Amino acid sequence: MKIGLIGYGTIGCGVAELLLEKRRHPNLELVKIADIDLERKRDFMPDKSLFTTDAFEILNDPEIDTVIELMGGIEPARSYILSAFANGKDVVTANKALLSSCWKEIMEKANSCKRRIRFEASVAGGIPLLSAVFSGLGANKIEAVYGIINGTTNYILTRMEKTKESFSNALAEAQKKGYAEACPSFDIDGIDTAHKIAILASLCFGKTSPVSSIYTEGIRRITHFDISCAAELGYSIKLLGISRMDKDRLSIRVHPTMLKKEHMLSSVSDVYNAVYIKPDLTGPLLFFGRGAGRYPTASAIYADLLALKRGEEFCIPEVEMVEPINITEITSKYYIRVQAEDMPGVLAMISGVLAENNVSIASCIQKERGKAVPIIMITHEAREGAIVSSLSKIDKSPFIKEESLKIRIEEI
Amino acid sequence: MKIGLIGYGTIGCGVAELLLEKRRHPNLELVKIADIDLERKRDFMPDKSLFTTDAFEILNDPEIDTVIELMGGIEPARSYILSAFANGKDVVTANKALLSSCWKEIMEKANSCKRRIRFEASVAGGIPLLSAVFSGLGANKIEAVYGIINGTTNYILTRMEKTKESFSNALAEAQKKGYAEACPSFDIDGIDTAHKIAILASLCFGKTSPVSSIYTEGIRRITHFDISCAAELGYSIKLLGISRMDKDRLSIRVHPTMLKKEHMLSSVSDVYNAVYIKPDLTGPLLFFGRGAGRYPTASAIYADLLALKRGEEFCIPEVEMVEPINITEITSKYYIRVQAEDMPGVLAMISGVLAENNVSIASCIQKERGKAVPIIMITHEAREGAIVSSLSKIDKSPFIKEESLKIRIEEI
Repeated sequence: MKIGLIGYGTIGCGVAELLLEKRRHPNLELVKIADIDLERKRDFMPDKSLFTTDAFEILNDPEIDTVIELMGGIEPARSYILSAFANGKDVVTANKALLSSCWKEIMEKANSCKRRIRFEASVAGGIPLLSAVFSGLGANKIEAVYGIINGTTNYILTRMEKTKESFSNALAEAQKKGYAEACPSFDIDGIDTAHKIAILASLCFGKTSPVSSIYTEGIRRITHFDISCAAELGYSIKLLGISRMDKDRLSIRVHPTMLKKEHMLSSVSDVYNAVYIKPDLTGPLLFFGRGAGRYPTASAIYADLLALKRGEEFCIPEVEMVEPINITEITSKYYIRVQAEDMPGVLAMISGVLAENNVSIASCIQKERGKAVPIIMITHEAREGAIVSSLSKIDKSPFIKEESLKIRIEEI
Repeated sequence: MKIGLIGYGTIGCGVAELLLEKRRHPNLELVKIADIDLERKRDFMPDKSLFTTDAFEILNDPEIDTVIELMGGIEPARSYILSAFANGKDVVTANKALLSSCWKEIMEKANSCKRRIRFEASVAGGIPLLSAVFSGLGANKIEAVYGIINGTTNYILTRMEKTKESFSNALAEAQKKGYAEACPSFDIDGIDTAHKIAILASLCFGKTSPVSSIYTEGIRRITHFDISCAAELGYSIKLLGISRMDKDRLSIRVHPTMLKKEHMLSSVSDVYNAVYIKPDLTGPLLFFGRGAGRYPTASAIYADLLALKRGEEFCIPEVEMVEPINITEITSKYYIRVQAEDMPGVLAMISGVLAENNVSIASCIQKERGKAVPIIMITHEAREGAIVSSLSKIDKSPFIKEESLKIRIEEI
């Protein structure tokens, strides 16, 4: 196998280091590396003769039979991959943004060119999750998938829990450690998680939704106070990608979620990822490990190369693009935090509005007394629409000084 | 693919039900079922014409290209599998006793006949673990593997912890629920775990040991008192299969193990299994799910059939049989329970003997006062040999009324 690598960043360096040095393999030969910037310093620099700034030197090279795409983003990655197929090359990619946006086009092109694509590294990096789902669960109908699939946000939430830091301090710490980008929105606003859950839904259900239709809420509004209230009530707060089939309709969404402390997903801390799947025959499965990083991701790419070399294919299902269940239609228990002035009648107002909307309260915590006190309520099962209406009305009251927060409680 | 099934017990029924009813697949055709007892009532009974009492009607049928072996045990399963290869058939088996005892012979026969064997169901039943290790971790050197791979013992230990029951009551409950056999030694004495860790070592390290050389200690001597002392000290007690490479020497063993409560393996309860692997590139991985049962196991077998149909092979490493590191050579921290008469000088005697053997004590609990009191000690890192000598000397003292117990503490 003669391999061309496009995109020479952190992961690219890891892949090259494995192929050229650490895990040399007689049948996996890296022959060309393309990147637009060859000046930037890297911590693995093979011989200059391998490099080019022109990706088409790889895409048009008839000697090269396999292309690793590690640029990320939609263009030019999309065009390069389509061109690789057209030129008779198989593709290995870690590009979740591209796969979640252009799944149909990419798969159809691969099929029409009789080429193969593998993308183990695109979801949950070092965890051999897609291999397991593809080759281990073929007899099962999958009912639901829940994933902690963004290490940055999990690190931030863990740190807020352990050190009682604010969100912004924990984010700064994540940036200092290199876990979060200078522009962190992609991670903390849940967009990266949305890309990955879109891919997981494709594989698990043969249905997925455009990323723009996936309800996506990040962790910016979670405070240390929420995390400690959750802990007191026996819950942890995790950013989850969730997808499941509800009577033939696809539910797919990304949001901070309260989970019982005893649930295994609750014990997934720091930058670790975990995916909890419910296949009908095996019963629940959990896969845990590192979701990102140079070597974990390079390991996944190397495994894809080996699989192609062995002649294995992902049996990629025909995927239907559907509109998911609207978030206002879901039902859940909710954690609600209302920041209210400490005045007579406030609790009566809040509970009155909830009652009007048929939302019934399971428990209530009001701890401090002072000018503005947080009131925490846990509801019984309620429709999201009813919660949204309630909070919108509550927030209009002159007693309320800040937009109220809701966190969905999942009983997985 | 024309399939013959040998052994029609619980799992066999599950497999037949999937192939003939629930998950019919145009390319997976179950054409014959052999079992010596066709009278016993089963909860899935396909047409009588499928059945035979003579396995050779399958093994000698040139129409059949794939044999599922679900008899268990060494003979006649071994001869049947060898004969299947000789007759040009691929094999799917769940038989861990056979694989751990006759690995070399089976694999060599498969190779020499150019036939394939798959055995996803043999370790951790419904968890697609072997697929993941084989197809997802090819770039990695695996450093260690730790498994809760026997659901019966995990159920018993969980129950003892939750309901404060004695071992024998928890065992009786496991038998009532059908989790434990009438003759439960195979599970509770760790033999089943030894078979499975032998297979995992083969796959992870390309080295394994004969089951007779694997140090194997079950859970009979664990009391509820031990479990609650462990909890108080921040530990859980799990029966683990452990294998790792220590400077080119194989360590492989089965014993009750104390694990920090925060470790993910500690949260694996009831009949669930989990395997924790440490590959060098990905970092630690954990796979969790049901290790046994009709549908989880049948799901694994069905996945193996699909993989054979797709033309995939397990890339089974050349396995070297080695003598493992002797258990007396390992070092660990230990939990020690000594049942002593409450007399002056007893603690001095015990701590004196430990000091003589260079075992240093990290903490000590002595709670009750009475005729015979349990003294609990946690040691610093010590050689097993030193612990064994110490306890053997301590147990000879007239103050000691019962054989002392040690539990190894693993810091995974």
